[in-house]
Amino acid sequence: MDRVIRIGLLGCGTVGGGVVTILDREADDITVRTGAKLEITHVAVRDLSRSRGLPLPDSVFTDDPVRVVEADDVDVVVEVMGGIEPAGTLVRRALELGKPVVTANKELVAQQGPELYAAARAAGVDLAYEAAVAGAIPIIKPLKESLAGDRIRRVVGILNGTTNYILTRMTEEGASYEEVLADAQALGYAEADPTADVGGHDAAAKCAILASLAFDSSVHGDDVHREGIESVTATDIRTADRLGYVIKLIGIAHESDGQVGVRVHPAFLPKEHPLAAVRDAFNAIYVEAEAAGELMFYGRGAGAEPTGSAVVGDVIDVARNLLQTARGAYETHHRTTPIRPIDELATQYYVLLDVADRSGVLAEVATTFGAHDVSIAQVWQEGHGDSAQLVLITHRALERDLRATVDELATLPSVRSVASVLRVEAEVFEQ
Amino acid sequence: MDRVIRIGLLGCGTVGGGVVTILDREADDITVRTGAKLEITHVAVRDLSRSRGLPLPDSVFTDDPVRVVEADDVDVVVEVMGGIEPAGTLVRRALELGKPVVTANKELVAQQGPELYAAARAAGVDLAYEAAVAGAIPIIKPLKESLAGDRIRRVVGILNGTTNYILTRMTEEGASYEEVLADAQALGYAEADPTADVGGHDAAAKCAILASLAFDSSVHGDDVHREGIESVTATDIRTADRLGYVIKLIGIAHESDGQVGVRVHPAFLPKEHPLAAVRDAFNAIYVEAEAAGELMFYGRGAGAEPTGSAVVGDVIDVARNLLQTARGAYETHHRTTPIRPIDELATQYYVLLDVADRSGVLAEVATTFGAHDVSIAQVWQEGHGDSAQLVLITHRALERDLRATVDELATLPSVRSVASVLRVEAEVFEQ
Repeated sequence: MDRVIRIGLLGCGTVGGGVVTILDREADDITVRTGAKLEITHVAVRDLSRSRGLPLPDSVFTDDPVRVVEADDVDVVVEVMGGIEPAGTLVRRALELGKPVVTANKELVAQQGPELYAAARAAGVDLAYEAAVAGAIPIIKPLKESLAGDRIRRVVGILNGTTNYILTRMTEEGASYEEVLADAQALGYAEADPTADVGGHDAAAKCAILASLAFDSSVHGDDVHREGIESVTATDIRTADRLGYVIKLIGIAHESDGQVGVRVHPAFLPKEHPLAAVRDAFNAIYVEAEAAGELMFYGRGAGAEPTGSAVVGDVIDVARNLLQTARGAYETHHRTTPIRPIDELATQYYVLLDVADRSGVLAEVATTFGAHDVSIAQVWQEGHGDSAQLVLITHRALERDLRATVDELATLPSVRSVASVLRVEAEVFEQ
Repeated sequence: MDRVIRIGLLGCGTVGGGVVTILDREADDITVRTGAKLEITHVAVRDLSRSRGLPLPDSVFTDDPVRVVEADDVDVVVEVMGGIEPAGTLVRRALELGKPVVTANKELVAQQGPELYAAARAAGVDLAYEAAVAGAIPIIKPLKESLAGDRIRRVVGILNGTTNYILTRMTEEGASYEEVLADAQALGYAEADPTADVGGHDAAAKCAILASLAFDSSVHGDDVHREGIESVTATDIRTADRLGYVIKLIGIAHESDGQVGVRVHPAFLPKEHPLAAVRDAFNAIYVEAEAAGELMFYGRGAGAEPTGSAVVGDVIDVARNLLQTARGAYETHHRTTPIRPIDELATQYYVLLDVADRSGVLAEVATTFGAHDVSIAQVWQEGHGDSAQLVLITHRALERDLRATVDELATLPSVRSVASVLRVEAEVFEQ
């Protein structure tokens, strides 16, 4: 076997370094499994002067990514630079040239997926992006291939490691969001500007990609209703615990009544649910399919080698297809299912109110819920005097009704403030 | 698109019925995703007179499976009859004829995998068997494809739903094995003759298949050291619980020091481990890979539609390859790694002894452990008089030393009997 598949690598940061390391370390096995040697011939980096300590000759590095894409001795383009541009232009150029692309770029796929899928199909080449969602966890291939004969009803994911790490520590230590975030930043688990993670942007991009695949319909990153974990308090977590729940930042994509609902937000999950046991920086994706039933995929959602493992798996797939002049399954997106407005969501809610500590308050609050058709499942008072609070769990209600309720609650003289509102995803998991 | 891929179905029991149902119900989506219509043209059954209530014309049924395999209007053979023969002969005949095969037959793949893989490779066609291990859970494809660039260190699976159901109920109800088994049989969760499940035979076949794939080396069903759950008692489960463990029937395949260890037996698992939370009839497979780190795959391991979903996923894959005259990745099995004898296993153990209730007993027992180089991590007495017991947890020790210890313990006058010996898989999960 003398065949060689030549790889052009765009970007050589954390993930790129992982890819180079794995391709070098497992070279012999990879050659046998692929049926060809995989060789990195060009690597585009921003800063040529930086020393990277990778098993690659200096001659492969360049600061011109277009040259890498267009090089005659590049058969497969691996994009691990991240961001929308120039990554998008480079990926499109590669596809135009008939070169298959492997990317780990969730933002790009969430924003421009349909155009990129179409470009790949037009060129008759592969576009693989396993590493774009949940790092090392095989989830794109199971959704696209293993479940190709099934009908997916719902996907629920813990898709961001940083927020799951923060929420796990808040839960296990009783600590506040601010304390844990500061510590996570000091330890390198959270970025100096943590917005992409804690604001749910990262999870929303991944959720859009999963929704598109699960429901054969284009879901754009901006279609995802998004709320972050910044306002989750130690009190919320304690209350959840007492009621048999944990708070997790989840992405949910759900098809019903001819609409796709797709949202990322913190939520109460029952402790018995498999996702509730997902701790620290781990990710997991729970899938409900018509025939297969409940499935869950668990693992590391980030990091050089976990993400690198997914990229290299894709490269081997793509290389095997190239050797056979074949290609993997294309995204079909043969439906155009409308997105369900968040107002029309029906779920349960947890509401925490700072209230005046006097008789009649509960009646006023209950009347307000009732006036908006939101039925209360549980309610009790915590604390006294200036720290009196009402904790309420609703039955299943429409989001728009709950919002109207909360708006009116905020105007009641007996309600000092609406401290927290979170969704309770309990019925979701009833089969 | 007018292309049709014609399927010959061997067997039409539970799984076959699931396959027919899914292919019918999801026909439109499957056609789009495959790029061809999938049509069942022949179905071999044992009893032609039985009415099956499936959406198929009577004319497709025959009691001659060879005719199905050889029929000109069969492009893909789907084997869901089970058992070694005639299934093995039929699968080999199909491959000889250049027809790809999808099978759900764990026993056949565990017994004859290498020969069948070689036959498929020689014919240049696909042999797919996702449904043979853990029903609906995508695990074959992730091991073969997603992790093709990685190095797998260990696979630990809950691979049998019946035993997991029994152990879950024993754990949650404090009930005895005999009680729960009888109830499971009455409910149809366990067979009248439960040996294949409770004796670990079913799990051992699946474990052999996973080990072969994980380590690129042929592991035969008979290579698997196998113990069932028949002698697990309510006391064992209670003791495990008190120490922070649950008892699960697990299959473990592990490569180290140039050997593959592969075994199925009940074991103590730490409650924090993701596998410990797998309840009822669910299956799960935990994978440790060099680059990807820890992964887990969870779902339904049996049943008409869950298994059918995996079969149909494979059929779509195989059909897409046929349309491109391509084929999926072959098993490489390019290593011939020796199997580690169970005697050379090193792990921790739990030992429960019925002992005489008098001073000096502990010293005698401890001396016996020490004489065989087995170090005791924890020991305490339970009960008094005729029901006095010693509970011991060892440090990591060699299986052969533990066995010699137990053999000698049984001869001590102060030991009335060795009530239980179980492995404690705690260190397994330290990274």
